[in-house]
Amino acid sequence: MSYPEPLNRLVDQLKRLPGIGAKSAQRLAFHILRTPRDEAERLVDAIRDVKDRVTYCSVCSNTTEADPCIYCTSEGRNHRLICVVEEPQNVTAIEKTRDFKGVYHVLMGALSPLQGIGPDELKIKGLLSRVGEGNIEEIILATNPNVEGEATALYLARLLKPLGVRVTRIAMGVPVGSDLEYADEVTMHKSLEGRREV
Amino acid sequence: MSYPEPLNRLVDQLKRLPGIGAKSAQRLAFHILRTPRDEAERLVDAIRDVKDRVTYCSVCSNTTEADPCIYCTSEGRNHRLICVVEEPQNVTAIEKTRDFKGVYHVLMGALSPLQGIGPDELKIKGLLSRVGEGNIEEIILATNPNVEGEATALYLARLLKPLGVRVTRIAMGVPVGSDLEYADEVTMHKSLEGRREV
Repeated sequence: MSYPEPLNRLVDQLKRLPGIGAKSAQRLAFHILRTPRDEAERLVDAIRDVKDRVTYCSVCSNTTEADPCIYCTSEGRNHRLICVVEEPQNVTAIEKTRDFKGVYHVLMGALSPLQGIGPDELKIKGLLSRVGEGNIEEIILATNPNVEGEATALYLARLLKPLGVRVTRIAMGVPVGSDLEYADEVTMHKSLEGRREV
Repeated sequence: MSYPEPLNRLVDQLKRLPGIGAKSAQRLAFHILRTPRDEAERLVDAIRDVKDRVTYCSVCSNTTEADPCIYCTSEGRNHRLICVVEEPQNVTAIEKTRDFKGVYHVLMGALSPLQGIGPDELKIKGLLSRVGEGNIEEIILATNPNVEGEATALYLARLLKPLGVRVTRIAMGVPVGSDLEYADEVTMHKSLEGRREV
């Protein structure tokens, strides 16, 4: 490559980011070169601030500035109801519904033998100790509706049920606003299986 | 959004980059959060170094650390032969062939009325003054083989020919290693039109 060395180095660093290939990294690096100085500084500051100020909650592993996080310290929420999700992003998806008034537990992934992610790589011990402290009434397993998420939910259900806590799984079925014509077999199967009285 | 503020801000900054949508920005921000401190610092340093140390050559507009650039100051190159390209990235594409021993002129774009890019937005004046200084034998127009690149090449040819310089355009045709079955009509047309004696 005949680019100036700092430009090559930026391309290399950008290529390390997930979903950024050689062509994207090059396009981004040239964009950063063209962009006004203060725009680049805002990006640099934003990266630094995330590293300096954002951490994971020591109770639920959600992303937070203060530890424990706003959910774990909220007096208005039901601390006997824990919703288990794979990633911090999933907390946002559930908060958007404004339906859920319990607290969270973020596993930081899902079981995936192919990727070498076993139970020890996930925040399962912390969940068990929260349940072990008593007072928990229900655990909602809101891991993703795919192979890894289902396996993780099943694994957790087997661990948690013997502790005397109610364990539930979010419903899978046809998405609202969709057309049955486009539903895949497995989703349609789950949708029929989960049918309820009207 | 219920993310910590620095994380939201990083997502916003990343969304401003070309080709990075809301979902990609979120994935990148969480990646940066998870990544080791020194990895994030290397990215920050790379961005800063590009802004601090890389500039554009005052002669040919190529990216460079030293001004004028290595091509414009090279004694081993033919300074009477100028290859005109749209972007600094294109210089690399031509250098890879190791065939070209002339110098470059980067337009920093192509004519695009729809995007409001006229002749004044491109580095055309600099090219004309290089030709005006005399001694230039040939200008190779290596703008992209698309509508904007063709229009730009045509526009430049009309400006340059009256100055008594030889103006050539890179060949368009079927790419080497491809299959005629997949060639589009316009490419096939150019390929036939540009046929040569064997």
